Amino acid sequence: MRVRDLGEFGLIARIARSLPAPGPGVIVGIGDDVAVLRTDGTRHILATCDIQVEGVHFLREKITPQQLGRKVIAINVSDIAAMGGLPRYLLVSLVLPKDTEVAFVDGLYEGMQAECARWGAEIVGGNMAHSPGGVIVDIFLLGEVEPEHLLQRSGARVGDRVLVTGTLGDSAAGLALVLHPEARCADEHRRWALERHLTPTPRLWEGQAIARSCLATAMIDVSDGLVSDIGHICEMSRVGVRLWAEALPISGAALAVAEAVGARALDWALSGGEDYELLFTAPADRADELARQVREETDTPVTVVGEIVPETEGMRLIQQDGSSVPLSKGGWDHFAE
Amino acid sequence: MRVRDLGEFGLIARIARSLPAPGPGVIVGIGDDVAVLRTDGTRHILATCDIQVEGVHFLREKITPQQLGRKVIAINVSDIAAMGGLPRYLLVSLVLPKDTEVAFVDGLYEGMQAECARWGAEIVGGNMAHSPGGVIVDIFLLGEVEPEHLLQRSGARVGDRVLVTGTLGDSAAGLALVLHPEARCADEHRRWALERHLTPTPRLWEGQAIARSCLATAMIDVSDGLVSDIGHICEMSRVGVRLWAEALPISGAALAVAEAVGARALDWALSGGEDYELLFTAPADRADELARQVREETDTPVTVVGEIVPETEGMRLIQQDGSSVPLSKGGWDHFAE
Repeated sequence: MRVRDLGEFGLIARIARSLPAPGPGVIVGIGDDVAVLRTDGTRHILATCDIQVEGVHFLREKITPQQLGRKVIAINVSDIAAMGGLPRYLLVSLVLPKDTEVAFVDGLYEGMQAECARWGAEIVGGNMAHSPGGVIVDIFLLGEVEPEHLLQRSGARVGDRVLVTGTLGDSAAGLALVLHPEARCADEHRRWALERHLTPTPRLWEGQAIARSCLATAMIDVSDGLVSDIGHICEMSRVGVRLWAEALPISGAALAVAEAVGARALDWALSGGEDYELLFTAPADRADELARQVREETDTPVTVVGEIVPETEGMRLIQQDGSSVPLSKGGWDHFAE
Repeated sequence: MRVRDLGEFGLIARIARSLPAPGPGVIVGIGDDVAVLRTDGTRHILATCDIQVEGVHFLREKITPQQLGRKVIAINVSDIAAMGGLPRYLLVSLVLPKDTEVAFVDGLYEGMQAECARWGAEIVGGNMAHSPGGVIVDIFLLGEVEPEHLLQRSGARVGDRVLVTGTLGDSAAGLALVLHPEARCADEHRRWALERHLTPTPRLWEGQAIARSCLATAMIDVSDGLVSDIGHICEMSRVGVRLWAEALPISGAALAVAEAVGARALDWALSGGEDYELLFTAPADRADELARQVREETDTPVTVVGEIVPETEGMRLIQQDGSSVPLSKGGWDHFAE
């Protein structure tokens, strides 16, 4: 059996089963994007890592080193934001071909440092190795969270509303433009989609507002795609979900680029991934209040996009005409063909 | 300019210069193998990472997945041991070709888990990505240290003795046997050298004994090689060193393998690297006492191998005939030709 047969999540589940039960210091362990660890201080430690592999996650000729540096920090900060935490310290593992230009490394660190400064994180170390292939950047990010503000994937309850910050599908639109630069669309749409893909903004302050409200019941960031990520919440909370197609927040840019390249913006919104928006749940009678609160504090739009239902009802998309279709996990699997 | 022109340490120094001064929470930051971070609890956090790249650090046909798993944990635990700390939690970043056998991943985790159990560490998460090339395993290890037991590279003083645990050059001997399996030597020597290379033992309890003695002034683990690693102590402590060739602890196995392959065991001891012994300094009048204490507590031999001298005297090797030669940093540089 090969790893492609099991898939990423199958492999992770297999590994998790093979390991001993977590000790008393582990609040959230293997299987989540972020580990949550008890200390003898007042705050929990958050630990996450995310790797960017040339030829898999990025193409060196399609992204500047500064953009790559910013992105690799942003996607890790996004994971910390989704727990209600703040990023603090990071280590950088860098695997470089020997003939890499020093200017590339300079640009990469320039981008990483700029993004770190934006979110209050510090680069405190790392590791370097020679690469027989392309460039690999692996970031280990440590954060912290007040125990009472920790948000997990497992807290969603039947009846809760599903909310999302910002818009969905923009990163997929940006990727489409990277791969098809000849596609014709308005400059402002092109700029917006490319920026969302190449230098995503983690929703750190939104995550803080959501966590401090004490109204949200579960949270995750949209990295694999809306369906896949709500799937993680459903799995960990043992619930089902109905997503309302009509309610999904899709930008004018995503609609325009989809039309230009002959794709469906709805598909991008459902399973494009890499939007790094926050996806969270809250009791039905408090959802609007929470959405308004986050909007007021951060200027970021928040939209109610569905509702949590019993696990037996599974995951469904309610279409404009009222009909519903089952959702299969259409997220990104790193070992799928 | 390419990274190979600057070399690993040149590149790290360049990056360190480009970053802002560390904040108040950072006790040891970039440039060390381990970051030391303040918390509001009673212990400092230690954070380190170490990456193993197929074709650079290992050959998949020369090491079993179990051995690789054990080794990648051991080399990270060694870094924590060298600060006087204990390992606690780790994240595993895994980059795998899609056609990797699941049995390889099973074996890798089996080895990692066995080694973690040995040192009291827990695997709490990680990340997976598809590799366009070979296998890459990046470990992010968190540890902790009592503030009063923290040992750094910067504390060596003129007059201090230099001490080392165990024997030096065995890992290089093991590597020579991996590359030249036809070399003829006694089975016990072959077994010893291969084991030291393929499944090194981090000196965790020795590190604890040294730290708790409060006699040592500086410490590092021998990963790049004795000369390179004492060089880090000299640089950070602003001192020089005299190493005594005659005193270097070299095993019968290293001597036998060196003879079999036509190499010099002394060269391996000086710059072979990957021995994962602890290299530390202590005041001249307490060095023997400390060596005895560690030996009694752990059964591991400790040898005095040199003395710290003023920085202006540089780094020299005192040979058997009393003559001395300057030591250049003969350690492993990941970007050197």
